[in-house]
Amino acid sequence: MAANTWGELFRVTTFGESHGAALGAVIDGCPPGLELSEADIQPLLDKRKPGQNRYTTARREADEVRILSGVFEGKTTGTPIGLLIENTDQRSKDYSDIKDKFRPGHADYTYAHKYGVRDYRGGGRSSARETAMRVAAGAIAQKYLAATLNMQFQASVVQIGPHSTHPELATFDWQQVADDPLFCGDAQMSAAAQDYLKQLLKEGDSVGARVRLEVNGVPVGLGEPVFDRLDADLAKALMSINAVKAVSIGDGFAVAEQRGSEHRDALTPQGFSSNHAGGVLGGISSGQPLIAEVAFKPTSSITTPGDTIDVHGQPTTIVTRGRHDPCVGIRGVPVVEAMAALVLMDHVLRQRAQNGTVTHSFPQI
Amino acid sequence: MAANTWGELFRVTTFGESHGAALGAVIDGCPPGLELSEADIQPLLDKRKPGQNRYTTARREADEVRILSGVFEGKTTGTPIGLLIENTDQRSKDYSDIKDKFRPGHADYTYAHKYGVRDYRGGGRSSARETAMRVAAGAIAQKYLAATLNMQFQASVVQIGPHSTHPELATFDWQQVADDPLFCGDAQMSAAAQDYLKQLLKEGDSVGARVRLEVNGVPVGLGEPVFDRLDADLAKALMSINAVKAVSIGDGFAVAEQRGSEHRDALTPQGFSSNHAGGVLGGISSGQPLIAEVAFKPTSSITTPGDTIDVHGQPTTIVTRGRHDPCVGIRGVPVVEAMAALVLMDHVLRQRAQNGTVTHSFPQI
Amino acid sequence: MAANTWGELFRVTTFGESHGAALGAVIDGCPPGLELSEADIQPLLDKRKPGQNRYTTARREADEVRILSGVFEGKTTGTPIGLLIENTDQRSKDYSDIKDKFRPGHADYTYAHKYGVRDYRGGGRSSARETAMRVAAGAIAQKYLAATLNMQFQASVVQIGPHSTHPELATFDWQQVADDPLFCGDAQMSAAAQDYLKQLLKEGDSVGARVRLEVNGVPVGLGEPVFDRLDADLAKALMSINAVKAVSIGDGFAVAEQRGSEHRDALTPQGFSSNHAGGVLGGISSGQPLIAEVAFKPTSSITTPGDTIDVHGQPTTIVTRGRHDPCVGIRGVPVVEAMAALVLMDHVLRQRAQNGTVTHSFPQI
Amino acid sequence: MAANTWGELFRVTTFGESHGAALGAVIDGCPPGLELSEADIQPLLDKRKPGQNRYTTARREADEVRILSGVFEGKTTGTPIGLLIENTDQRSKDYSDIKDKFRPGHADYTYAHKYGVRDYRGGGRSSARETAMRVAAGAIAQKYLAATLNMQFQASVVQIGPHSTHPELATFDWQQVADDPLFCGDAQMSAAAQDYLKQLLKEGDSVGARVRLEVNGVPVGLGEPVFDRLDADLAKALMSINAVKAVSIGDGFAVAEQRGSEHRDALTPQGFSSNHAGGVLGGISSGQPLIAEVAFKPTSSITTPGDTIDVHGQPTTIVTRGRHDPCVGIRGVPVVEAMAALVLMDHVLRQRAQNGTVTHSFPQI
Repeated sequence: MAANTWGELFRVTTFGESHGAALGAVIDGCPPGLELSEADIQPLLDKRKPGQNRYTTARREADEVRILSGVFEGKTTGTPIGLLIENTDQRSKDYSDIKDKFRPGHADYTYAHKYGVRDYRGGGRSSARETAMRVAAGAIAQKYLAATLNMQFQASVVQIGPHSTHPELATFDWQQVADDPLFCGDAQMSAAAQDYLKQLLKEGDSVGARVRLEVNGVPVGLGEPVFDRLDADLAKALMSINAVKAVSIGDGFAVAEQRGSEHRDALTPQGFSSNHAGGVLGGISSGQPLIAEVAFKPTSSITTPGDTIDVHGQPTTIVTRGRHDPCVGIRGVPVVEAMAALVLMDHVLRQRAQNGTVTHSFPQI
Repeated sequence: MAANTWGELFRVTTFGESHGAALGAVIDGCPPGLELSEADIQPLLDKRKPGQNRYTTARREADEVRILSGVFEGKTTGTPIGLLIENTDQRSKDYSDIKDKFRPGHADYTYAHKYGVRDYRGGGRSSARETAMRVAAGAIAQKYLAATLNMQFQASVVQIGPHSTHPELATFDWQQVADDPLFCGDAQMSAAAQDYLKQLLKEGDSVGARVRLEVNGVPVGLGEPVFDRLDADLAKALMSINAVKAVSIGDGFAVAEQRGSEHRDALTPQGFSSNHAGGVLGGISSGQPLIAEVAFKPTSSITTPGDTIDVHGQPTTIVTRGRHDPCVGIRGVPVVEAMAALVLMDHVLRQRAQNGTVTHSFPQI
Repeated sequence: MAANTWGELFRVTTFGESHGAALGAVIDGCPPGLELSEADIQPLLDKRKPGQNRYTTARREADEVRILSGVFEGKTTGTPIGLLIENTDQRSKDYSDIKDKFRPGHADYTYAHKYGVRDYRGGGRSSARETAMRVAAGAIAQKYLAATLNMQFQASVVQIGPHSTHPELATFDWQQVADDPLFCGDAQMSAAAQDYLKQLLKEGDSVGARVRLEVNGVPVGLGEPVFDRLDADLAKALMSINAVKAVSIGDGFAVAEQRGSEHRDALTPQGFSSNHAGGVLGGISSGQPLIAEVAFKPTSSITTPGDTIDVHGQPTTIVTRGRHDPCVGIRGVPVVEAMAALVLMDHVLRQRAQNGTVTHSFPQI
Repeated sequence: MAANTWGELFRVTTFGESHGAALGAVIDGCPPGLELSEADIQPLLDKRKPGQNRYTTARREADEVRILSGVFEGKTTGTPIGLLIENTDQRSKDYSDIKDKFRPGHADYTYAHKYGVRDYRGGGRSSARETAMRVAAGAIAQKYLAATLNMQFQASVVQIGPHSTHPELATFDWQQVADDPLFCGDAQMSAAAQDYLKQLLKEGDSVGARVRLEVNGVPVGLGEPVFDRLDADLAKALMSINAVKAVSIGDGFAVAEQRGSEHRDALTPQGFSSNHAGGVLGGISSGQPLIAEVAFKPTSSITTPGDTIDVHGQPTTIVTRGRHDPCVGIRGVPVVEAMAALVLMDHVLRQRAQNGTVTHSFPQI
């Protein structure tokens, strides 16, 4: 698995910087015969796109995706699918005030030391704009999994700063989530959080968020012991999203307080009686809904001045101009869904390779 | 990255079932010239070994590791290192009471449906015994990283059920951690948790735990954008450990409540002024200590009877006989250290491949 | 190593069909700091480009390559390099006479059965046009290896049908090879072969060729036992080129007739006294020039009618219209160089990962 | 694909030196449910084993293989299969006369410079003894492919020095090949070659060989464009065998002399009318028998003294004592079959991953 490639059998390779000529991706390993056009991808890209409402950055990115290869007469051919988004807004910006300063909380400092090269433009490869290509690739995986296994990927915001909801409070009416400006399923929490975000924008600050993922339709038997467990791959996929600092499956950190008699999900002839495990046992899907949560950190690109150093090691202060997202977790929602789809897609193909079918019908079960 | 292989350049492949003939591992990619003998590995294996005290299972596993290849005249040669632990205690056990029942909370059910084959012996490949080989491989990585970069991997138990400590309360005197029967750095918490565990043993129940990892000596610049981020690989490595349900880096889930002005770690000529990020920025190490936490679920192998089904789909109850760990997180401590070492080792080699050196001295820094 | 990706550490992923919207490649793992622009790539693409002279197909392909990412201020940044060639000549062609027929000697039949999908346009992904992206990626590797190790990749045509030369007859004045319309270093053979090709064109037939590769400047110690040997990777790289049917290293098939006393190259304080091995011993480079040969089959796209079947399984005949190369091996010369460069580049990075340096100075040598 | 690992989905990792404690392999990705015991592997190991007759080295290697994991109640479970051969004959040998000398034509010199470490014992990891584990792993692949697709792997010696046969002369009665001491299907050639080998043994010299592989039962559609072509992977697999210097598919180097009208295999309703392609078109199997040839160089371990240098760079001469194979190609026959089986096995699983089935029944064909 290469640095800029995700997956073993459904492989997504991305390239492009936020202020370069274009963003692109190559999807290698998509089964042939899937109906596919740009219309399957664009809506998910639009969901992630900035400038959709006042809580996301006003920066305009056209994000018009083109399929360059791998599709013939409306169907995938089995050959690699090339995707491209040309960056239309590349006018030379004035970076003179940040060119020599490391932005605190950014990849600036670590990239410079890793590569010995400094691309001081807005984030370069570490920009969240890179996730557009993950969403595009994930859209293809989502379409395939929905078509063949009726699998559904749905994420929502369940916490923004001090405002949170619980699964039982949130309705998880997914249409409501889609319509909510914060992708939140609890109208009360959303209203309170929107007020909070308006205040933050005035103060020139940002805040973190927690996002909950639910995947329905996962067949039993996906995941590979011992390292490529389904939950392990999901943890990597979600932690690889910009700004994510924590990942949990099922009851997550709460399991540290639970007893075995409480945690274990009883098996009955009608199925599991609870889902503390979050749909994974021994690293392999149990057939229950897959449940995960992630925490997004607050972006450091805020108009509140911050202490830092310049490239000569001298102390200085920095202010990030321009409007940025007060809460990057909101736009992270479709990225969470996309990465989960890439993980599941890969494991479906792996399972098919090893067993011929996706799930064994175990004797008498 | 194959199912039973970890790593790209320092590759660890493990095999063996808990009740089979042997456990083994192949380490491919270890640089030549490292002094190595069984004496470098055995102490870490002994730390993980069951039966060390009353809080870990009394089952006896000799866990005597042999180096079969890759070392000549006391030094690694650059060729693959074969490791083997023969299972000495293989007497045929009576499985008749569990042979046809799925144990709730176990991989039993998912393995049976994944493979269409049922290995009803004590866990087979999904047993925690498999982690012995991770510890053995990790010991080699830890030795190399300590010798070349003075990197140190240290984990400790910071929560067991209702009993917890905070980094500031725990002394993190690592000798004290090593001597504590619960690998806990807070004597007060350890004492309370020991009483709690004794009570659990009487009740035939188990409990979860939280483990904190600290890696010192990590150079700036390790990790690969965008998918093979250092934190993403660490998340996968830790989530792949049996019973782990959550992984966090730095402030973890608490970032959902933080503001940007609070979270971002200021840069000063003397270094970072705080470490909310946990040593990773944009997926690349910042040179600060790497901080992570994981949650271990309570084992489901308890003497409290549980509801389940048999292989014919009929409802039944199950009791796991024999003594088991009341808290598997304790023995997970050396496994957490080992997996972190495998991640860092791989990224050190990757960095060296791309840049020739581990860290660029960036101009003027 | 994925189907459309070459390499472990210098990874090249290509996409695009000959009659689709574009061809592209992503190069992941290029070390940062290499000066790079389109001007480093275009000349090698032009060498491969059809229509250069009367012995290569007259089809016009602009083959204008654009660098989309991974280069900032004229230097590589360490992030993935996106390359794109838009297909300018995409006018809808009339395929009605071949749409339902399998072309004998082509991938038509095998692709249709592999994917269950038929892209009847001129070769689709199996077209030699795909190799343009190999040449582009190879150009970057060649530049890096020349700049850092003074490595040189040079191939030439040594046989076309009945006309051949021997290394000792060919001057291997590489400028002469570059100027020769057949990339042949033996003026006498070239003249005879040109007459032969003119005759073939008249007859509507084609012919095979043999190409010899010589890589100078290869340091001792490259290659990985036991599977990823340098010669094994080179064999795969060269055999993966369209139309190649055989690969040999050093004395090649002639070794079946040699005795051990004749084959083994003696070591002297001044170096090896001969190079029967072709620069590889035990799968690892010896420091001598790397010598390989490949055989290109004659293209099946000829105007001589051929027997075949249609997609309904009925017998029919087929004629490939339009002008095609009478000898595809000629345009294969830069592809051979490119693939060899990709192999060497990858092994240089792998060696650096494992050993820190490219070559150990072994004691006293 | 790691240095000591073969394959993507059926992954074979080997370890062990010829004079170390043991040889071993891990096979990861074998489908569950295959009946398997040591009795399926041992006969193929015995075929490769030295000391079988006067034309192979008299060295005794017990080569008793043990299955350590991955098999339960006589069937594979889907978990990794660990294989081990303990080296019984490890008595300390006297290496004093070669310890400081590089053997010409061996990996001695290249290993020393690659790793900076010298394992002067009989070949270490570069010894042909390493191929025992390839044969063991290949035996499992051969069993699976025979059971599920009726695929058959058969190789034979077609040239030894000046003595050769042609496919049409050799009967390819595979039982006769198996019974022949040289694995040759032409009794006349075998008799002449045996006389020749006896003479070589007297003279203390060795000779090369050519081996022909034929795989029957290959379904149409295996192989991945563009890099992981079936013929490219086969070329790598065969070139990775010790002493192999050339690989060809179908008509091989002879295609350089052929015309397109002669080379292309016509398609008829009854199948292909010839097999110049050797069963591969565009890198994908055509359904015809897969035909390949390899050339083995003569071993350099001969009793004829040879010029070389010592580790101090001083000129000296060397004589390899003990009896060695006069023609290593003979024992290479089962290794050729094994490597081909590993290639096909991997591609069968890859095809199944992508398409669900091994071969699409293309409309009307």
